[in-house]
Amino acid sequence: MLPSGLARNVLFEESDGRFTGVTPDSEPGEAAPLPGVVLPGLANCHSHAFHRALRGRTHDRGGSFWTWRETMYEVAARLDPESYYTLARAVYAEMALAGITSVGEFHYLHQAPGGRGYDDPNAMGVALIAAAHDAGIRLTLLDACYLTGGVAGEPLSDVQRRFSDGDVDAWGRRVAELHDAPGVRHGVAIHSVRAVPRAALPTVVAVADGRPVHVHVSEQPAENEACLATCGLTPTQLLGEAGALGPTTTAVHAVHLDNADIDLLAAAGTTVCICPATEHDLADGIAPAAELRAAGVPLSLGSDQHVVIDLFREAQLLEGDQRAGWLQRGRFSPAQLGTAMTAHASLGWADAGRLEVGARADLVAVRLDTVRTAGIDASQVVLAASAADVDTVVVDGTEIVRGGEHRLGDVGELLMEVLT
Amino acid sequence: MLPSGLARNVLFEESDGRFTGVTPDSEPGEAAPLPGVVLPGLANCHSHAFHRALRGRTHDRGGSFWTWRETMYEVAARLDPESYYTLARAVYAEMALAGITSVGEFHYLHQAPGGRGYDDPNAMGVALIAAAHDAGIRLTLLDACYLTGGVAGEPLSDVQRRFSDGDVDAWGRRVAELHDAPGVRHGVAIHSVRAVPRAALPTVVAVADGRPVHVHVSEQPAENEACLATCGLTPTQLLGEAGALGPTTTAVHAVHLDNADIDLLAAAGTTVCICPATEHDLADGIAPAAELRAAGVPLSLGSDQHVVIDLFREAQLLEGDQRAGWLQRGRFSPAQLGTAMTAHASLGWADAGRLEVGARADLVAVRLDTVRTAGIDASQVVLAASAADVDTVVVDGTEIVRGGEHRLGDVGELLMEVLT
Repeated sequence: MLPSGLARNVLFEESDGRFTGVTPDSEPGEAAPLPGVVLPGLANCHSHAFHRALRGRTHDRGGSFWTWRETMYEVAARLDPESYYTLARAVYAEMALAGITSVGEFHYLHQAPGGRGYDDPNAMGVALIAAAHDAGIRLTLLDACYLTGGVAGEPLSDVQRRFSDGDVDAWGRRVAELHDAPGVRHGVAIHSVRAVPRAALPTVVAVADGRPVHVHVSEQPAENEACLATCGLTPTQLLGEAGALGPTTTAVHAVHLDNADIDLLAAAGTTVCICPATEHDLADGIAPAAELRAAGVPLSLGSDQHVVIDLFREAQLLEGDQRAGWLQRGRFSPAQLGTAMTAHASLGWADAGRLEVGARADLVAVRLDTVRTAGIDASQVVLAASAADVDTVVVDGTEIVRGGEHRLGDVGELLMEVLT
Repeated sequence: MLPSGLARNVLFEESDGRFTGVTPDSEPGEAAPLPGVVLPGLANCHSHAFHRALRGRTHDRGGSFWTWRETMYEVAARLDPESYYTLARAVYAEMALAGITSVGEFHYLHQAPGGRGYDDPNAMGVALIAAAHDAGIRLTLLDACYLTGGVAGEPLSDVQRRFSDGDVDAWGRRVAELHDAPGVRHGVAIHSVRAVPRAALPTVVAVADGRPVHVHVSEQPAENEACLATCGLTPTQLLGEAGALGPTTTAVHAVHLDNADIDLLAAAGTTVCICPATEHDLADGIAPAAELRAAGVPLSLGSDQHVVIDLFREAQLLEGDQRAGWLQRGRFSPAQLGTAMTAHASLGWADAGRLEVGARADLVAVRLDTVRTAGIDASQVVLAASAADVDTVVVDGTEIVRGGEHRLGDVGELLMEVLT
């Protein structure tokens, strides 16, 4: 799947993790063959790795996003750097099996329980960096500022104290200790307008200094209501006022927007990261994807709380919701969905996500002979395949998945070891 | 997953295809172990086997249900009994791999091209029966009456002539030649109010004579509009007037209903078969599942045109749409979804779908140690697993899938042979 469309018998050549040749209609020669259709590496633009521990464990109690959050906080309260590493490594390996080559980890679990710091104030972030390294995928650590328990400056709950640096300057000092490395980039996050006071928002943007800024926006109506009541602004308006929207910003979820919000996001060049499986699972609602696209807003996808780790599924849900809502097919073309599945630039990896000379040498080979994919048109693979059809994954020139097996071994077993 | 809920170390004993013992907390003894969580066999209550040929092949052209139908007709025009057998056998084997032990095949591809009959007027139905037999799953052949091209009696198109017996009596005579056999039951179908004239509906019901009657109802607004314009009734009202609703009837889709329609279905004890993946894919809309349940309407699930064959996915979409629409979680409990996934009775197999003594000895073992299912609560498996997690499938006491492999061999290859 080249930038120009589907090609056959493509010979990929790489050196130092970058493509030095991408040549259709080639003889195989000595090259290692890849099965099926070869896609660029996929970008999972919104992840909370530890939420994976809640998969299939909260469906017996009804409730809402907010009651689910209480259960999530119970998991958050139990993790330390060692267990966080072990869990995240397995989750990132699950992502690798799904063809994901870059992940944006929206990280807010900074302190030890109760809010006291670890000896290394970035011990939890360092655990995530090591986990991604060992799982073989690139990481953008989006270090979240989290200071308050609500838009009106409500105090933090016991568990939330783990998320906080106390004030925005202390957050900035901790973040300043983090440095990019091969396969690792650092961005920042405004957890949400619930967790960062209006006055602190410009400081977060200043700390970002052009690196990616991610922010949860309008996932639930209650956030909008509180923001309007407290500030007289929608969350999007509040972020805009603070200078927090721009072309390096990603607004995550953006489910409950009005037309003015959409115009603001579009004017700023802000990306919206839709997480359809999570937004269904947590009863958030359906993001206005068609309206965002019509306004020119770039879209990305994320598996967020990992009810499933499968960007094919996310793309299928995005388009499926559109079809069901508008009674029209093809609201997003396979190519448009592919663009959303490979939005590495929004994670600071502008040189990834394309099968072309000079780009990072990521490859995802998807089998076209499984029970799920047999008979499909390769150009429509994003609407027919699943993560289970991924055969081979190469990240920066290194093969990390072959024959559906991760180089770390049985990833189900790795997950079982930490989750059961 | 026993009728009373989750149990451990259950010993299953069977004789002549029925359970003779279902005993929790047993010693394994000589019994063959099953991995993961063991569910009853799943019922795929709405299938058009040949639509599988369209998976991943119609996403490049936008359009609507009606333009998709044109492409589907091109496939319908090409099939003969031999190719239909080969295709359906592979599709039913794909179903077996997904844990499906009964399928309701809504069958309308009766005649040779142009509408002339085969030497055996039931040659196409016989092909389906052989296909299900060889794939090892039970079949309810829902033989559809299809006489007109629209509610106002529009003539059939060229392709549609393959679907028609000419008149309802000729349809009834052909259907009378079909007889139940082990693993095979016969029901009837009213294709839709578009395809069966008002005056012919009571005859179809009479031919059914208490066997299952399935009917496409209000999949698209255009059907409602035509029915109201022609008859002054909604499709549901028209079917009710004809006596076609009742406890052995299944209304398939039922997406575009008004409150009176829902009350009619409930009063009649009619089952509604929701096909969420298809209804998204074909831009049909979202069925009013909560309103149907509140009225007391039993629900079943179907993979219909097989954009995916995975009743776990169907259940997840059903509940996910509810959550996104109502901003509440747990709209359908895992147990309620499990009931919809095992609605064998609506296919005439009232003795299947429960792990209890006397019931048909169907088993589906779902692994709990895959990347998808590791760490989940077994009682919530329907909201976390996928067809790819099915390990072992037993139908009427016979093992047809073990270790995720069908006894016919590589089902992807079987599909490739017929689809490429």
